[in-house]
Amino acid sequence: MFMFEKPLGMVDTLPNLYEVKKKTRRAMTNEIEAWGFEFIETPTLEYYETVGVQSAILDQQLFKLLDQQGHTLVLRPDVTAPIARVAASKLFNNLYPQRLAYSANVFRAQQNEGGRPAEFEQVGVELIGDGTTSADAEAIALMISVLKKAGLKNFKIAIGHIGYANALFKEVLGNQERADVLRRFLYEKNYVGYREHVKGLPLSSIDKERLFTLLKLRGGIEKVDEAKELVTSQEARSSLEEVSQLWNALEAYQVTDYLKLDLNIVSHMSYYTGVLFEVYADNVGFIIGNGGRYDHLFEKFNRAAPATGFGLHLDRLIEALNETEEAKLQCVIYSQERRAEAISFATELREDGKRVVMQDITGIKDVDAYTKKFEEVSYFIGSRKEEL
Amino acid sequence: MFMFEKPLGMVDTLPNLYEVKKKTRRAMTNEIEAWGFEFIETPTLEYYETVGVQSAILDQQLFKLLDQQGHTLVLRPDVTAPIARVAASKLFNNLYPQRLAYSANVFRAQQNEGGRPAEFEQVGVELIGDGTTSADAEAIALMISVLKKAGLKNFKIAIGHIGYANALFKEVLGNQERADVLRRFLYEKNYVGYREHVKGLPLSSIDKERLFTLLKLRGGIEKVDEAKELVTSQEARSSLEEVSQLWNALEAYQVTDYLKLDLNIVSHMSYYTGVLFEVYADNVGFIIGNGGRYDHLFEKFNRAAPATGFGLHLDRLIEALNETEEAKLQCVIYSQERRAEAISFATELREDGKRVVMQDITGIKDVDAYTKKFEEVSYFIGSRKEEL
Repeated sequence: MFMFEKPLGMVDTLPNLYEVKKKTRRAMTNEIEAWGFEFIETPTLEYYETVGVQSAILDQQLFKLLDQQGHTLVLRPDVTAPIARVAASKLFNNLYPQRLAYSANVFRAQQNEGGRPAEFEQVGVELIGDGTTSADAEAIALMISVLKKAGLKNFKIAIGHIGYANALFKEVLGNQERADVLRRFLYEKNYVGYREHVKGLPLSSIDKERLFTLLKLRGGIEKVDEAKELVTSQEARSSLEEVSQLWNALEAYQVTDYLKLDLNIVSHMSYYTGVLFEVYADNVGFIIGNGGRYDHLFEKFNRAAPATGFGLHLDRLIEALNETEEAKLQCVIYSQERRAEAISFATELREDGKRVVMQDITGIKDVDAYTKKFEEVSYFIGSRKEEL
Repeated sequence: MFMFEKPLGMVDTLPNLYEVKKKTRRAMTNEIEAWGFEFIETPTLEYYETVGVQSAILDQQLFKLLDQQGHTLVLRPDVTAPIARVAASKLFNNLYPQRLAYSANVFRAQQNEGGRPAEFEQVGVELIGDGTTSADAEAIALMISVLKKAGLKNFKIAIGHIGYANALFKEVLGNQERADVLRRFLYEKNYVGYREHVKGLPLSSIDKERLFTLLKLRGGIEKVDEAKELVTSQEARSSLEEVSQLWNALEAYQVTDYLKLDLNIVSHMSYYTGVLFEVYADNVGFIIGNGGRYDHLFEKFNRAAPATGFGLHLDRLIEALNETEEAKLQCVIYSQERRAEAISFATELREDGKRVVMQDITGIKDVDAYTKKFEEVSYFIGSRKEEL
């Protein structure tokens, strides 16, 4: 194996990108803190039997290993399940609602060269123990505020509800297996496949039309009325009621310009239980983040609680920001007899907030070539300039 | 398995400790940047065949796993080897000397419950391509400055040289196996074991005395003269010459009050090639960080270069700082009809740098109990206070 190779999907972050990431992460975490969320950190490795099986990530995407005691460990595939573990154990004495946040790398094993990253950073929040739509509204309003503070200009949050499509499918299809097939098409955003599949189903043309109409339920909040006409069950109607309440709450935050309704969102199939949302930036073709309500995860940790939250994909956000950041460096070249003088000079600049490299001239091969990358270069070479 | 368990040596970082870590990390990285070092990030997983075998960490301490292509991967056991990989490949076009830095978690598999952490954060630098003692002095002076900015008051840097003990052992013992045994005692700081072992060696009493005297070579820089009398080889003498030069350079940085000489330091046995140093804080019984010169690592990546650097163990530093930090939170309790009012109120406080939780009153079970943890609580409940 060639010495410079890295595992599939693993990347290095070089100085310029590192600067942008740092600046962006700081703007995001400062805003999350301003909203009273408290950051925690969980380990990179968790037991497969506890956190691994509770995560929303497919088994084949987990990085697994055996520890020296023979237990299967996983590299944290998401942060929501570990946070649930902590909230349900160590933070058990804190009263609900609890507002927790994280900025952490997550891991997803990849099958193909040149595909998605196998390790990437997520910045997110979990609002635990509050089942009101106010909590969902807060999560969405915070997410919008975080994106704005990060510098993102043109973006939209698509809002849906897992209960609506589920109820419509139950009304029309009757069984779970058929519903799963359609949900899979929506999850993959494969609308052509969805249409083809519906065409082939043994259903009345009215019912097929209802399933086709689902795909049109994207746009402004007024689409809720259209959606109501498509369903009869209480489950579907109360899903829509929740979406309307959420939208009202978000009007108070003055962020509805960023919203669109999308009743086709199903997101992670096994995870969410209510409102769902996804972030789209105008200039990139992928989701920058997503979130929603997950009211059943905490039961698995013996402490039932409703919860809502979001996660943002830092690298994708940075791609959408399309900014570059280069640190401005100054250089002080010195010879050993004038080291003390060079140190005081550099120390003063550093105290002024400058970034200053100090370099012994005997440690450089080609001074001209070396000094090219610096904004400014000062020399403390040879005998003291006592005449100055 | 109980749902709350974590793998051996893995820990959660809860809000208060997270705050201290963040504050400390920021002070450290700001200072490292001020000295012109550029931060990079490398992946958590690396190939065992490349970075894994080059690391200074024992094989049994590596977390290993197989990827889906059948290669052995390791969780990064240190950051120096990955940085060498990057510097020798992606940053190959940058001219030496290169100043790189990192703040990253590293992983060491543990055998026992209640032992050392299996994952911990290191903050460090690598100064690559400069073989002068000025580079070593810069690394040590920067490390001292970083520790001071982090808030550490009483600490010492013990400085040694791997070449001195090596040369003395060669002079006295003649063979490598015997030297390895003694180096192992020094590495474990098992001086009693060292003495007992020396007593049993088939050596003249003069030579035994030389080996005993090595243990006394700890103190001020004046111990260098004593050390010189113990050896005859050029290798030993030039090691001492380097230490003296280094000390002189550090006088220019005005940091010699923090230094002590310790010619017993051998640190990672396979890694360092010259000057070595370790950080001790007065109030804790463990090394907070260490560093030294490693001039042969880059050869493994086909780009020979001298290098020096240090790594600080963030959690241990924080233990030595013994500070606590609790975020001061305010709370705004609102009812839905006054949400907009509550939002403007909270927004203003947040813009003033306050951390403000907004909470819908219908999302709380017990208002009195819930609001106890906040510094201040404001209520926007019921009908508008139009009379105010």
